[in-house]
Amino acid sequence: MSERPLLTQLIDALRCLPGVGPKSAQRIAFHLLERDREGGVRLAHVMADAMTRIRRCNHCRTLTEQDLCALCANPNRDGQVLCVVEQPSEILAIEQATDFRGRYFVLGGRLSPLDGIGPRELGLDQLDERLEGRAVREIILAISPTVEGSATAHLIAESAARYGVNLTRIAHGVPLGGELESIDGGTLALAFKGRQQV
Amino acid sequence: MSERPLLTQLIDALRCLPGVGPKSAQRIAFHLLERDREGGVRLAHVMADAMTRIRRCNHCRTLTEQDLCALCANPNRDGQVLCVVEQPSEILAIEQATDFRGRYFVLGGRLSPLDGIGPRELGLDQLDERLEGRAVREIILAISPTVEGSATAHLIAESAARYGVNLTRIAHGVPLGGELESIDGGTLALAFKGRQQV
Ligand SMILES: [Zn+2]
Ligand SMILES: [Zn+2]
Repeated sequence: MSERPLLTQLIDALRCLPGVGPKSAQRIAFHLLERDREGGVRLAHVMADAMTRIRRCNHCRTLTEQDLCALCANPNRDGQVLCVVEQPSEILAIEQATDFRGRYFVLGGRLSPLDGIGPRELGLDQLDERLEGRAVREIILAISPTVEGSATAHLIAESAARYGVNLTRIAHGVPLGGELESIDGGTLALAFKGRQQV
Repeated sequence: MSERPLLTQLIDALRCLPGVGPKSAQRIAFHLLERDREGGVRLAHVMADAMTRIRRCNHCRTLTEQDLCALCANPNRDGQVLCVVEQPSEILAIEQATDFRGRYFVLGGRLSPLDGIGPRELGLDQLDERLEGRAVREIILAISPTVEGSATAHLIAESAARYGVNLTRIAHGVPLGGELESIDGGTLALAFKGRQQV
């Protein structure tokens, strides 16, 4: 038995991309092979590198290949204001849409004890350490207003109260159930400006 | 100056995929990093391999990493019937939709002298060699009915006449300007069955 043709292997492997079915996988494979091999080679190398080297920032838990991500390493960001998000992708959305110049903390999910996601999995002990240092003046919650999101927010509110940190959350305007990264920039900017005291 | 973050490099590199804009590139990058690193690693390796090793079959000019593609190497295919297509992707579409059991020849484009695409670039000299061997009884043209496609078909008709090979073309039913690989299988199968003498 000979190995399956490389073209078939490529089409199959492309199915791991979100939203890519058999037809799109074929279209992508032929596009790369016939029109953009250089782009395909570059993508393959960057992808292999990214999959093996990218991990969580020691400080804010976002995705980075460094010990400290670019935002945490940037001395011009205001460490007194900390925006708490669920996912790393939301940092990109906020950076692109708002003029927020503080720092971030990434939970990586929502409280969900039945799935084994408790305070520790969300890094809340690590967040407490940052608050303990008394450097943070305000926490801005940018967490989706779901049941699990609210439970998470409640735990963070307790920490904030314990350390005397001001707690706000971004204004509604973010539609219920909507994903932060798919909201238009204007709405997201307004939500940041209109944040209210919790 | 430090290098750009790997995550940014990955998002940029993903833009070489057809139809992938900045937002989709972000979505794909986070999906792979957070939910399917294994798939991403496998895709990266297969893609690097495919981009460097896949070239044209010596016999039919389709894409393969072997000297002879799987179809040309398959002794059960009928070499007396040769289906001429413009692109390798069209072979996949025909194989999936019809019960054609002959062999293929891939032009790789249409006659377009202004773009430097002449008979030689389409491999018509190589096609002539195959006809010269007198092994081919019928050529089925599966070429789009455009001006350039018709000009190409005309050249192949001359060769077929010279070597006494029967020439047919797949029935209309393929919509004008439509791409062969996006047509539903039933229509394509009918087009094969209803092929007419040229
Ligand atoms: Zn960081
Ligand atoms: Zn072949």
